[in-house]
Amino acid sequence: MTQTRRLGVGLIGSGFMGRTHAFAFLNVGRVFALPVAVELEVLADASEDLAARAAASLGFRRATGDWRTLIADPAVHIVAITTPNTLHREMALAAIAAGKHVYCEKPLAPTAAEAREMAEVAERAGIVTAVGFNYLKNPMFRLAREIIASGEIGEVRDFQGIHAEDYMADPDAPWTWRLDPKGGGGALADIGSHIIAAARYLVGPIERVQGDVATLIASRPVAQGAGARRPVQVDDIARAHVRFANGATGTLEANWIASGRKMRLDFEVTGSKGALAFSQERLNELRLYHADDPAGRRGFRTIFAGPEHPPYGAFCVAGGHQIGFNDLKTIEVYDLLRAIAEQATGHADFREGQAVAEVIEAIYRSAREHRWVNVAG
Amino acid sequence: MTQTRRLGVGLIGSGFMGRTHAFAFLNVGRVFALPVAVELEVLADASEDLAARAAASLGFRRATGDWRTLIADPAVHIVAITTPNTLHREMALAAIAAGKHVYCEKPLAPTAAEAREMAEVAERAGIVTAVGFNYLKNPMFRLAREIIASGEIGEVRDFQGIHAEDYMADPDAPWTWRLDPKGGGGALADIGSHIIAAARYLVGPIERVQGDVATLIASRPVAQGAGARRPVQVDDIARAHVRFANGATGTLEANWIASGRKMRLDFEVTGSKGALAFSQERLNELRLYHADDPAGRRGFRTIFAGPEHPPYGAFCVAGGHQIGFNDLKTIEVYDLLRAIAEQATGHADFREGQAVAEVIEAIYRSAREHRWVNVAG
Amino acid sequence: MTQTRRLGVGLIGSGFMGRTHAFAFLNVGRVFALPVAVELEVLADASEDLAARAAASLGFRRATGDWRTLIADPAVHIVAITTPNTLHREMALAAIAAGKHVYCEKPLAPTAAEAREMAEVAERAGIVTAVGFNYLKNPMFRLAREIIASGEIGEVRDFQGIHAEDYMADPDAPWTWRLDPKGGGGALADIGSHIIAAARYLVGPIERVQGDVATLIASRPVAQGAGARRPVQVDDIARAHVRFANGATGTLEANWIASGRKMRLDFEVTGSKGALAFSQERLNELRLYHADDPAGRRGFRTIFAGPEHPPYGAFCVAGGHQIGFNDLKTIEVYDLLRAIAEQATGHADFREGQAVAEVIEAIYRSAREHRWVNVAG
Amino acid sequence: MTQTRRLGVGLIGSGFMGRTHAFAFLNVGRVFALPVAVELEVLADASEDLAARAAASLGFRRATGDWRTLIADPAVHIVAITTPNTLHREMALAAIAAGKHVYCEKPLAPTAAEAREMAEVAERAGIVTAVGFNYLKNPMFRLAREIIASGEIGEVRDFQGIHAEDYMADPDAPWTWRLDPKGGGGALADIGSHIIAAARYLVGPIERVQGDVATLIASRPVAQGAGARRPVQVDDIARAHVRFANGATGTLEANWIASGRKMRLDFEVTGSKGALAFSQERLNELRLYHADDPAGRRGFRTIFAGPEHPPYGAFCVAGGHQIGFNDLKTIEVYDLLRAIAEQATGHADFREGQAVAEVIEAIYRSAREHRWVNVAG
Repeated sequence: MTQTRRLGVGLIGSGFMGRTHAFAFLNVGRVFALPVAVELEVLADASEDLAARAAASLGFRRATGDWRTLIADPAVHIVAITTPNTLHREMALAAIAAGKHVYCEKPLAPTAAEAREMAEVAERAGIVTAVGFNYLKNPMFRLAREIIASGEIGEVRDFQGIHAEDYMADPDAPWTWRLDPKGGGGALADIGSHIIAAARYLVGPIERVQGDVATLIASRPVAQGAGARRPVQVDDIARAHVRFANGATGTLEANWIASGRKMRLDFEVTGSKGALAFSQERLNELRLYHADDPAGRRGFRTIFAGPEHPPYGAFCVAGGHQIGFNDLKTIEVYDLLRAIAEQATGHADFREGQAVAEVIEAIYRSAREHRWVNVAG
Repeated sequence: MTQTRRLGVGLIGSGFMGRTHAFAFLNVGRVFALPVAVELEVLADASEDLAARAAASLGFRRATGDWRTLIADPAVHIVAITTPNTLHREMALAAIAAGKHVYCEKPLAPTAAEAREMAEVAERAGIVTAVGFNYLKNPMFRLAREIIASGEIGEVRDFQGIHAEDYMADPDAPWTWRLDPKGGGGALADIGSHIIAAARYLVGPIERVQGDVATLIASRPVAQGAGARRPVQVDDIARAHVRFANGATGTLEANWIASGRKMRLDFEVTGSKGALAFSQERLNELRLYHADDPAGRRGFRTIFAGPEHPPYGAFCVAGGHQIGFNDLKTIEVYDLLRAIAEQATGHADFREGQAVAEVIEAIYRSAREHRWVNVAG
Repeated sequence: MTQTRRLGVGLIGSGFMGRTHAFAFLNVGRVFALPVAVELEVLADASEDLAARAAASLGFRRATGDWRTLIADPAVHIVAITTPNTLHREMALAAIAAGKHVYCEKPLAPTAAEAREMAEVAERAGIVTAVGFNYLKNPMFRLAREIIASGEIGEVRDFQGIHAEDYMADPDAPWTWRLDPKGGGGALADIGSHIIAAARYLVGPIERVQGDVATLIASRPVAQGAGARRPVQVDDIARAHVRFANGATGTLEANWIASGRKMRLDFEVTGSKGALAFSQERLNELRLYHADDPAGRRGFRTIFAGPEHPPYGAFCVAGGHQIGFNDLKTIEVYDLLRAIAEQATGHADFREGQAVAEVIEAIYRSAREHRWVNVAG
Repeated sequence: MTQTRRLGVGLIGSGFMGRTHAFAFLNVGRVFALPVAVELEVLADASEDLAARAAASLGFRRATGDWRTLIADPAVHIVAITTPNTLHREMALAAIAAGKHVYCEKPLAPTAAEAREMAEVAERAGIVTAVGFNYLKNPMFRLAREIIASGEIGEVRDFQGIHAEDYMADPDAPWTWRLDPKGGGGALADIGSHIIAAARYLVGPIERVQGDVATLIASRPVAQGAGARRPVQVDDIARAHVRFANGATGTLEANWIASGRKMRLDFEVTGSKGALAFSQERLNELRLYHADDPAGRRGFRTIFAGPEHPPYGAFCVAGGHQIGFNDLKTIEVYDLLRAIAEQATGHADFREGQAVAEVIEAIYRSAREHRWVNVAG
C-alpha cells in the first residue's frame, strides 16, 4: 500500500477569510476523496498572541507573529494568504522563493504589474497558485459554463454582471484598509474582481472596456465613532461597458454602497438561442431559458442544485438541500489540492488573478481618460 | 346645471398602440370621474378600408384613409398619433396648426431637433400635448416618486434602469419600420425611451452620458421568410453611464434581443437611507428598503398596489387585485384630459418627449465619439 | 347586411362588483369581436338617488331604486346581479321568470338547495346563466387546464388550492353583510368559492370532503368605530381535505384573516409527470414542471402570459405586458355573450354555481359532524 | 489551566445522514468555541469492510461491523445513530444502558410508545439525547421563534406547514426501507416529522388533529429495474388539520411525490398583528409582515440571514453569504455538545422526538378512524 502524500498548510491571517480558509482545509478531506492528506501546520498573524489564539481555535499546530517563520517552516507546503492586498505580493514572492505553493485571496495585488510579476515568478518556480475567486466554485457556475460551452443557449451575445452590497453604504462607517488608495481600488478591486472573474469564466477574455468610476461618500471617520474624517479616494461604484474577445457585449459593475443589497452578485448571459440568469442571493439556483421550447411553454426554468451538478453531490446526496458560502471555499481548496497532487488545471491561478487585475486597471484608466481602453493581455 | 364639455378624439393608426389608445379613451370615463365627456369621433389609417374596419371594431363614428381629413374634422379636439415615429412630426404639426391637442406615441420624433420644434410650436399654440410614456402612469411609479421626494430613502445616490425584451432576438425576425435608420434609432429609441423617461420621472434631469451601442444581428430578412436580407443599421443594445443633475450616478440600458425577457423594465434607486426596486414583470409591486429598520429586521419589503396608491382605487376598491397594461394607458389618457380640462400639469408632454430625445441623441453621439457627452437642455 | 343583434344590460348593485361588471360590459365590445351589440340600459340600486348617480358615472341610460323595474324593462336582456348573496335567489328567479339571461356574482346562493333551484328553473326556462368565478377566465388558467387535459404533466395526483386574504384580519374591522350567517358562510362562501371553482375547472368534480372550520375573531364592532360588538358566527378560516372523482387527493382553503396576504389565490397541481404552480399575486405567470426534462435541467419554468395564450392577445398583441383583474371580468362577459349569441358552452353557469355550493355545504357539514361527507351531485 | 474535556464520538451508519453527522462533528470545533474537544472514534456499519472504508473517508479512528462493539468502546461518549428507524430503539437503549449520550436521526422510532420508552429510559439514566430535526437549527427559525415569542406579530392565529419533495414521485423508483410498513409510516414519518417539529418549535404543542393519508403509487419495483412489484402500504401524502394548545388553528402536510419540489419545507405563521413566511428552498431568508406598518408601505420584507441572526455569525462574519444544509447539522451538534458539557437545554431531545411521534401517530389514527384525535401528551 502506498503512503498517502502529506501537505502541510500555513495560513497567514485569521480574519473573515482566514477562518474561511481554515474551515475549507479542514473540511476538504471529509467532503472529497483526496489524493493527499492535509495538515493544518502553522498560523501567522499580526502578533504572536493573536496567532496563538487563532491557531488554537482553528486547529493549527503552531502559531507565529512572523509570517516569514511560517514560510520557512519545512512542514508547510501550501501558504494561504488572507491579509490586506497590499501585502500579497511580498508574501507570495517569499513563499514562491521558498518553493511553496501559494493560495492567495483576491484581488491578487494592487496593480496588474505586480500581479503579472507574481504569476511569472510562480510559473518559473513551477509551483501551484490559486486566487480566491470562490464564487466560481459554485456548481451552478460550473453548470452555466457547461451550458454555454455546449452551445445550448447558442452564441453568447451579451453578459451583464454586477456585484453589489451595502457594507459601505453608511457614510459613518469608518475607515478600513479597503479604502487605502494603495490597495489598488475600492469596490471594483474588492468585489468587482469577483464579477470580472465570473465574466471571464463564463464568456472568456475581455478585450476592451469603457469605465465609469464614482466616489459618492467623500469622507469617512478615521475610526469608529471618531469625529475626524478622512477623504476617500477610492471608488464606491465602478462600472464598465465591455467587449469580449468573442465579440459579445457586456457590462460589469461593482458597488459597495448599494443600500439593501447583501449579496447581489448577479449575472445574465444572453445567447442567440437562450439565456441564463443567476443571483448569488440564491446561490443554489440557476435560471435557464430555451428559445426553442414550444410556443406557449417558454420561460426561465429555475434549476435547483443537486447531485447531477458536480460537485454538489460531495456535500449532499440529495438535491435541494443547498450548499453555503463556506462550501464554495471547500471546493476551491479541493481544486487547489488536485492541481498540486494531480496536475489538474483549469482553476483560477495567479495568471487568472493577473488577468482580472488587468481588467480592473483598464477600467480605472478608461474612467480617468474618458475613452475605451484595451485590456492588456 | 352646466353642460359637460365634450371632447372628440381622432385616432391615427389602429395597430397595437392604436387599439390601446382606443381602449383607454373608451374606458377613462367609466374608471374616472371625468371633467369632460369623451367621444370617439374619427379613426384614420393607411387606407379607407383598413380605417373603416378598425373604426367599427374600436367604436369610432367615422373613418378615413387620410389623416389630414381627421385633423380637419371639427368634432375632433384631440389627435392621437400611433404611427411609426418618422411620421409623428408632420402629423403633430398639422394637428397643432389646426388647434388640436396632440397625444403622441413615443419616441416623439427621430431627432431631438424635431422634438424640440414640436414642443415649441405646441407651446406657442397653447395646446395640450402628451407623449405615451405609459409605464410612468403605474401607481407604483407614483409611489416610488413620492417616496424619493419625501426623503424616505435619503438622498438618491444611484439609479439603475433597464428595458430589455426579446422581440428582436430571432435573427430571422424580418425587417420592420422599427429598423428604419431614419426612425432615430433601434432599441434605444423604441424601448429605451421608456427607461429614460422613468429615470427623469424618478430622479430628475440627466446631465451627461457615456454611451455604448451595438448591433449584434447584422442583417434581417427583408420580409417574413424571405431569403434576401438587409443590413441592420440601428442598435440592438444601447447602454449608458449617466450623471444626473442632482449628482447621482446611474446606468441606462435598452435591449431588444434579451432572450427570455418579455418585459424587463426594471429599476433600482439607491438612496443614502434606503432603496427601491421595481420590475415591470411584476408591475403591481414595489420593493422598498429602509436602512434604519431595526437590526435583524432589515429587508426589501414587497408592497402590492392597492387603493392607498392612487389611482389604483379607481380601477378596483380592493388591494391586490392588480391592474394591467391597458389600465396604465387609461391613466395616461385621464391625465391628458385633466390637462386639457383643468390645466393640470405634471404629465409627460412634448417638452418631456424632447428631453428624452435629447438623452437618446446624447447617448448615440457619445457612442460614436467615444466620450462623455452633455445632454442638451 | 344583417342587423347585429342588440343585447341590453341591467345591472343590480353598483359597489365593487357592480362597477367591475359595468367596466366589463363596456369594454367587451372593444376587446373582442362580438357576435352582438351590448347596450348598458338600466342600473338599479338601493335607492333612486344612489342608482341615478351610479348610472351616470357608469354609463347606464336609466336608473331605478327598484330592481323589479329593471327586470321588467323590455330593453334589458341580461340581468347582472352584484348584491349581497342573500338576495341572489329572489332576483335571479324573477329575472328568469321574465325570460332574461342572468349573470350573478358568487356565491350563487346561501344554500346548495337554493342554488339547485336556481339552476333548474333557469334550465327549464332555457335562458343563459353565468356565475362570477372570474379568476377562471385568466389565460393562465386556460393554459393550465389545457396542459392537464393533454396529459402533459401525466395523471393528476393531487391539487392544493388556497384563497387567502387579510381584509378581515383586523378584529376591529366592523360588521358587514359578509358576516351575516344567513349568507351561507364566511370566508369559505366569500372567497373559498373561487378556489373550489378553480379545483373543479382544473381537476374535475370533488367527490368527498373532510372539513375544518374556525372562527378566530369572536366578535366585531357593530359599525366602524362602535364600542358595541356583535358575535361572529361565520368562518374566518375554512379548510378541507378532498378526493376528486378521478381519484386525486387535494386540499382546499379559504382564509380572510391571513395577515399580509392581499390576493393569495394559489394552486399547485401535482401530476405523475410534472406539475403546475400558480399564484394570483402574479396572475400573468404560470409555472410548469416537466419531470422528463433532461437530468440537470429540471425546474419549474415561469411562463409569462402572451398572445399564444388566448384570449390574452385580444387585450395586447405583445407578450409580457400583463392583463389585470378587470380584464378577467371582461373575458367573463365575453363568454357569457358567446353563450347567449352562439350557444357556446363551457363557461361557469348556475349548474356550476350549484356544484360549488354543494362543495361548500359539504365542507360545513363535515366540519360540524367531524366526518368525511360526500358532495351531493 | 484546566484540561479540556474530551468527548469521543461513535457513528452508526455512513449513508447520507452518517456522512452529514461526520461533517458536523468535525466542523463544530472550528466553527464554534467549544466547551469540549470532540474526537471521531468509531464508525459502525453493516459490515467490517463497509465500515472500514467509511471510517477512512470520514476520519474515524476505528471501524466495526458490529454496532454493539462501538457502544461498548470506552472512548465513545456519544453514539450517533443514522440507521433506518426500525433499528433506532434497540441501538439507543443499548447506548443508554452503557451510559452513552445518544444523538439519533428522525423519526425517533416507528411508534410513539417506543419513542416514549426511549425518552423515559434516557431520562432515568441521566444521559443527554438529541433528535435530528436539523431544520430547526436554521438561524432564520430561531429568528422566527423570537419574533413570535416577543409578540411582534401579535397572537398566533394560524400555522401552515408543509414538507414536500419528489424523491418518490417516480412510480418506478424501487422499494427502500422507507417503505417498510414497520418503519412507522411513509412521507409523514420521513419528512413530515420535520414540519411537525417546526410547528411545535414555533407555535407550541399540538392538541388534536384531523388526518388524511393517501397512497397514490400502489406498488413499487422490488428493486431498481425489477419487473416484480411490491404493494406499498405507507403514505405518499399525509395531511392534517390541527389545533394547537394555545388555540391556534393550522395545517400540516408531508408529501414525497410532489413533482418538481426538491425541498419545499414551507411555513406561514399568521398572527393578529403580522405574519411570517419561510421556505427551505431559500433557507437564508425569512419574510416578515407587520400589519402596523404605515398604510401604503405594508408588505412582506425579505430578511437575509446575517451575523445579527445567531449563530449565523459563527459561520461567516458578513451577512448575505449564506449557510447551507450541512451547516444546520453543525449547529445541531453544537447544541448537543452544549447540552452535554454545560447542561444547556432547549434543543430537540428524545422527549421532543416522542412528542413528534405522538402527533404522527395521532394523524394516522385520525385518518384510519375518520375523526379528530387528541394527541397524547
